[in-house]
Amino acid sequence: MIETLRISHVAIRVTDLEKARYFYVDLLGFIETEKDGDYVYLRGTDEGQHHSLVLKKADSPGLSYIGFRVRRAEELDKAKEELARLSLKYTKIKEKGVEDAILFETPEGMPFLIYYDMEYVGDVRMKFYTHKGVSPVRLAHVNYMVKDVEREAKFLKEVLGYYETEWFLGKDNKTRDVIWFTRRGDSHEVAIARSERKTPGFHHETYYVHELRDVVKAADILASAGLWDSIERGPGRHGVTEGYYIYLRDFDKNRIEFFTEDYVVLDPDKWKPIVWRNEQIRYRSDFWGRPIPESWLNEWVPVEDISTGKLKGWSI
Amino acid sequence: MIETLRISHVAIRVTDLEKARYFYVDLLGFIETEKDGDYVYLRGTDEGQHHSLVLKKADSPGLSYIGFRVRRAEELDKAKEELARLSLKYTKIKEKGVEDAILFETPEGMPFLIYYDMEYVGDVRMKFYTHKGVSPVRLAHVNYMVKDVEREAKFLKEVLGYYETEWFLGKDNKTRDVIWFTRRGDSHEVAIARSERKTPGFHHETYYVHELRDVVKAADILASAGLWDSIERGPGRHGVTEGYYIYLRDFDKNRIEFFTEDYVVLDPDKWKPIVWRNEQIRYRSDFWGRPIPESWLNEWVPVEDISTGKLKGWSI
Amino acid sequence: MIETLRISHVAIRVTDLEKARYFYVDLLGFIETEKDGDYVYLRGTDEGQHHSLVLKKADSPGLSYIGFRVRRAEELDKAKEELARLSLKYTKIKEKGVEDAILFETPEGMPFLIYYDMEYVGDVRMKFYTHKGVSPVRLAHVNYMVKDVEREAKFLKEVLGYYETEWFLGKDNKTRDVIWFTRRGDSHEVAIARSERKTPGFHHETYYVHELRDVVKAADILASAGLWDSIERGPGRHGVTEGYYIYLRDFDKNRIEFFTEDYVVLDPDKWKPIVWRNEQIRYRSDFWGRPIPESWLNEWVPVEDISTGKLKGWSI
Amino acid sequence: MIETLRISHVAIRVTDLEKARYFYVDLLGFIETEKDGDYVYLRGTDEGQHHSLVLKKADSPGLSYIGFRVRRAEELDKAKEELARLSLKYTKIKEKGVEDAILFETPEGMPFLIYYDMEYVGDVRMKFYTHKGVSPVRLAHVNYMVKDVEREAKFLKEVLGYYETEWFLGKDNKTRDVIWFTRRGDSHEVAIARSERKTPGFHHETYYVHELRDVVKAADILASAGLWDSIERGPGRHGVTEGYYIYLRDFDKNRIEFFTEDYVVLDPDKWKPIVWRNEQIRYRSDFWGRPIPESWLNEWVPVEDISTGKLKGWSI
Ligand SMILES: [Ca+2]
Ligand SMILES: [Fe+2]
Ligand SMILES: [Fe+2]
Ligand SMILES: [Fe+2]
Ligand SMILES: [Fe+2]
Repeated sequence: MIETLRISHVAIRVTDLEKARYFYVDLLGFIETEKDGDYVYLRGTDEGQHHSLVLKKADSPGLSYIGFRVRRAEELDKAKEELARLSLKYTKIKEKGVEDAILFETPEGMPFLIYYDMEYVGDVRMKFYTHKGVSPVRLAHVNYMVKDVEREAKFLKEVLGYYETEWFLGKDNKTRDVIWFTRRGDSHEVAIARSERKTPGFHHETYYVHELRDVVKAADILASAGLWDSIERGPGRHGVTEGYYIYLRDFDKNRIEFFTEDYVVLDPDKWKPIVWRNEQIRYRSDFWGRPIPESWLNEWVPVEDISTGKLKGWSI
Repeated sequence: MIETLRISHVAIRVTDLEKARYFYVDLLGFIETEKDGDYVYLRGTDEGQHHSLVLKKADSPGLSYIGFRVRRAEELDKAKEELARLSLKYTKIKEKGVEDAILFETPEGMPFLIYYDMEYVGDVRMKFYTHKGVSPVRLAHVNYMVKDVEREAKFLKEVLGYYETEWFLGKDNKTRDVIWFTRRGDSHEVAIARSERKTPGFHHETYYVHELRDVVKAADILASAGLWDSIERGPGRHGVTEGYYIYLRDFDKNRIEFFTEDYVVLDPDKWKPIVWRNEQIRYRSDFWGRPIPESWLNEWVPVEDISTGKLKGWSI
Repeated sequence: MIETLRISHVAIRVTDLEKARYFYVDLLGFIETEKDGDYVYLRGTDEGQHHSLVLKKADSPGLSYIGFRVRRAEELDKAKEELARLSLKYTKIKEKGVEDAILFETPEGMPFLIYYDMEYVGDVRMKFYTHKGVSPVRLAHVNYMVKDVEREAKFLKEVLGYYETEWFLGKDNKTRDVIWFTRRGDSHEVAIARSERKTPGFHHETYYVHELRDVVKAADILASAGLWDSIERGPGRHGVTEGYYIYLRDFDKNRIEFFTEDYVVLDPDKWKPIVWRNEQIRYRSDFWGRPIPESWLNEWVPVEDISTGKLKGWSI
Repeated sequence: MIETLRISHVAIRVTDLEKARYFYVDLLGFIETEKDGDYVYLRGTDEGQHHSLVLKKADSPGLSYIGFRVRRAEELDKAKEELARLSLKYTKIKEKGVEDAILFETPEGMPFLIYYDMEYVGDVRMKFYTHKGVSPVRLAHVNYMVKDVEREAKFLKEVLGYYETEWFLGKDNKTRDVIWFTRRGDSHEVAIARSERKTPGFHHETYYVHELRDVVKAADILASAGLWDSIERGPGRHGVTEGYYIYLRDFDKNRIEFFTEDYVVLDPDKWKPIVWRNEQIRYRSDFWGRPIPESWLNEWVPVEDISTGKLKGWSI
C-alpha cells in the first residue's frame, strides 16, 4: 500500500482560457497563482500549495488527471513497484511547481497523478478583503465514473489506502452503484459511480466553502450574470455525506460542485459504512427529495489517455 | 377607497387539529396563542396580535378567509358603503380577539375579512430561548387564483388601496397572468394569478423569516421527520420579488411558504412596476432557473362561501 | 405637519476623497454613482435614487446635512411656512440630481434637507455578480446628539410626522436620554441622544444589510486590511431595536453602522413605545451585555451651519 | 510515542446537576445520552460515542479530566510503559461506556484519561427536527494552564504525538506563552497557556458548530434567558486559528467555547507554525481587535488530583 496523504488537485481541459478564467476567477472567486502558457493555475483561499485546479487549454473539455499527495518522497518508488506489480501503466512527469510526479492509470483507466513535493506559495485565508465570489476554500473531493466499481474500489482501498464511508445499492439492493471513500476523515475525498461505458469518465470536482450562504451565492452570481445554463443542480442538501451542495457547469460543460457541512469521521475503526438501499432513492442523493436533472445523471466528460494526452472518448 | 393598513391574517381549514399543530407548531415553530374549540390560533415571533394564522377544524382543506386590518374604526363603515355600492356580499362577524369584523367577497369571489381592532397578546421576538423550528417572524403575503385577474386587480387598487410592484405577462406578452401588490411597501402583500376555473382558489400564505438559513431549515426539519411530501418547491430565489423561498404542504395539502430578503419599495410614487415578459420564464419565478413542480403550478385549495361556510369547490 | 416620506440621504465631510472611496467603495462595497468635483455620490445596492451617501471634500470631518424625502412636491411650500412659523432658518439649494431642495435647521440646530424629486439611476439589487464588500442595501437610519432632546423630539413628531418606537431613561428614570423614531415603520429612521454640548453633533448613519454574515464581514474585511482603528464597536445585538450591528469609523473618524434584523412596526397605532429603564443599562444598548467603548459614548462629529457651510464646532 | 487518535471528551464538575442540565441541554442543545447517579453524559449532534462531555456532581467546579482516544487497544499498555518511564503517576479506571481506561497526570499535573473503546450509541446529526439551542456538533479542543509550558509541550509532542500549529510569544518575543497543538489536522485539539501558578488549571473546552449563526445564537439565547453573566467574551473572530468564537460560563463558572471556521492543516509536514509576536497582541487573540475581559485572562478552574479525586487548588 502507498501512504497517500490526501487528494491534492485536478487538471481539467477548457477550450478558452480567458472564458474559463472569467468563470472560475472573476465570477466564482478562485485565487489565480499564475498563468503559464496554456495553463492557468488556481487554488482555494486556504490552500498554500501552488495549485489545486489546473485549467489546460485543449480543443475539447475533459479531465487531464486527478492529483494525490503522498506522505513521503519514498512512496513514489513504492508506487512504481505497486503499479508494475499490477501491470498498470505509468510515467514520470513534471508539473509547474512539482519536479517529481508519477502519472498512472487506475485499473479502470482513470488518469491519476501522485507526487510528494509541490511548491508552496502561501494561503490567503485571512486576507478577507481580497476574497470574492463564493470564496472556494479547498479542494474537497472528486467523483468519477467507471464500469467495474468493485475493481476500482479494491484499488483505492488496497493500493491508495482509502476506506469507504457510504454506498448506494442498485435496483437489486446488492450491487454497489456508488461508493464514497475517505482517507483524511472528511465524509469523502473520492466517489466512484457505476457507468455502462467501457471507458471511465469524470463527473465533477468539489470545493469546500465555509457555509450555506456561499453555496447559494454561486447560484445568485451565475444567474445574475445570465449563466443559467451553468446552474445544473441544487442548491440542495445531500442525504449521503450530509453536505449542502450546488453543481455548476463551466462554458465547456466541465462540472464543479461547491459543498459544505459534511461530517468528519471521528473514529475510522468504528465507522460503519452507511448503506443506502434502493428504496431510499428519494432522499439519499438529495435529502429533501428534490429531483435530479437528467444531465447530472447522464453527462460527464472524458478523460485523457496518459500515454497520448488525447481523450479516450466513449469506447462503448 | 378604504384605508387598509396591511394584510393581517389567514384562516385555513385542516382536518386534524393535532396533526396540524404538530406540523405548524412542533416542527415549524409557530407560536401558539391558544386553542379554543375547533380553532388553534397561531402567530409569528414578531406578531403581538392574537393570531395571524388560524387553523380551523373542518372536513376538508381550504381557505376560510384572508384578514386585513384597516387604519381606523371608521373604515369599517366606509367598507360597507363601498361593498354595497359594488353589490358585493358581506356580513358582520366576530373572531376570537376581534369583536367587530366584516366578512365579504371580492369581485372574483375571494373571502376577505377586514377589522380594526384585535386583542394584543405581545410578541416574543426577543425571547430567543423559546424560538424553535424556522422561527416564523410575521405574515408576509398571500397568493390566490382568480379567473378575471384584471377585475380583481382593480378592486385591490381602487377599493383596498394596494398598488402593483411587478407582473408576469402571458404567452401573448400582453395579458397579465400574475400581479403582485403592496400597501406597506414590502415587495408584496398580495399576489393574484390567473386561473381557468370559475371559482377562486387559495394558493399559499407566506411568512417572513430572518434569513436564508431559516428558509433552508424548513427543508432539513421536514425531511428529517420523514415528511418529504411536504417539501414541494425550493429552496430557491425568486426573480420576481427577489425573495429566497421554500413552499411546503401541510398534511391536508394546504400550502405555506417561508421567505426572506425581498426588497422594500422606498419611493412608491417612483416605483415602475417590473414587467416580466414571457421569454423571461426561465428565471422570473425562479431566478436560478430551477424547474417548477407540476403540483405547484396546478394545485391549490378551494375557498369558503361566506354565506354558508362551505367550500365553493371548482365550478368549472 | 409636513408629509415626510422617509429618510433619504446623508452628506458627510471627508478630508481625502480617494481614501474615503477606498474605504466606502473598495472595502465596504458601496455603489458609486458618480464623482463630480469635490463630491462622490454613493448608494446601496437596493437604492435606485442618485445617492444616499454623499462624500464631500472638506478640510475636516463632520456632517453637511441629513436628507429627507417628502411625499409630494407641495410639501416643500408647506415646509417653508412651517419653518417660518417656527422661526427656523432655511434656504433653497440644489444637489446633483435634485433641482429643488430646502436646507434648514431643526430647533436644536441640526442641518436637514428636504426634497421631493431626485434623479433615478436604477438599483443593482439583483446584479449579484457585481456586489462586493458587505453589500450595503439601503440607508436605514441616522443618530445624532442634541442638548434638548424633548424640543427636538417635538419637532420630529409635530413637524416631520415621526413617532417614537423606544426610548432610554437616564439615571433618574424620568429624563429621556435617547429616543428612537420611525415613519416608514422600521424600528427607526432617526435616533436622537442627549448631549451636554450646546451645539448638535452627528453620531452615525446606518445601512441595512441582508444578514448577520454581512455585518460580521465588515469586521473581517477591515481587520484583514489592517484597519483595526476603524472597527469601533460590535459586532453585537442591540436590545433596543433588536438589530445586529457593527460600528465603524472611516479615516476621518466619521462613524458608520451596518445593521440587520430589526423589527417592523405592524400596527403603529397599537405600538407602545418600549421604555428602557436605567437599571436595564447592561443589555439595552447591547443585548448581550458587551461593554461599550468610551469613544462610542463620547465622540461624534460636528455639523455644518447651513448659512456658512462651516462647522459649528462645540460651543460649550 | 503513544498512537493517540484524537481528543475525545471532558469531565467537568458542577454543583447542581439539574441547573447544569438546564444550561447545557435545554439552552445550549447538547444531546443527553443518559443520567446515571451523580453523572450526566452529554454529546454533540455528530458524535456517535456515549459521551464527550460529562457533568459530575461535586461540591465545587473544576475539571475531573480530559479524555483522549488511542488508535489501538495495545496503546494502553504502551502508555503504561511510557508513563512509568517518565515517572508520571497513573491508575486504571472505568467510565460508563468505557471498560478500560488509564487516568494519569501529565508532567505539569493535568489529569488525562486515555482509552481505546467506548460504547457507541449513534449520532443524531441528520435528525434535524430534534436539534435545538446552538446544536453543538463535536468536541473540538481544550485549553489549559500550566507553569512550564515547554515541559508540557514536549510531553504532548513526544508522548502523545501532537504537533504545533501556532504560538504566541511573550513580552520578550522569545518565551512561548501559548501553544496550539493538533493531531487530527484541525487548527488545534489542545492549547496550553503559561500561568504563574504551580498547579495547573483548566481554561475551557470547545465545541465545533456549523456556522457563525450558531455561535451568535448562543449569545441570543443566554441573554434572552437573563444569563448575561454567562456571556463572557465574544462573539469574535480569532486571529490565531481563524475561528469564530464565543466563550460562556456555566452556573459554576466552568467555561465553554463554541467555535467554527477554523482551518485544516492540509500538509502537516509542510506546515510552518504561525508565530504571533508580542506586537501583534491587538489582533492575534481577537482578529478584530476586540478587548479581552479580565475574567477571561485571569480566571480558570482547578483540576482534580487523580489519586484523591479532590481539587488541587492553587498551590502558589
Ligand atoms: Ca461551516
Ligand atoms: Fe460531490
Ligand atoms: Fe409567495
Ligand atoms: Fe444606529
Ligand atoms: Fe479555544
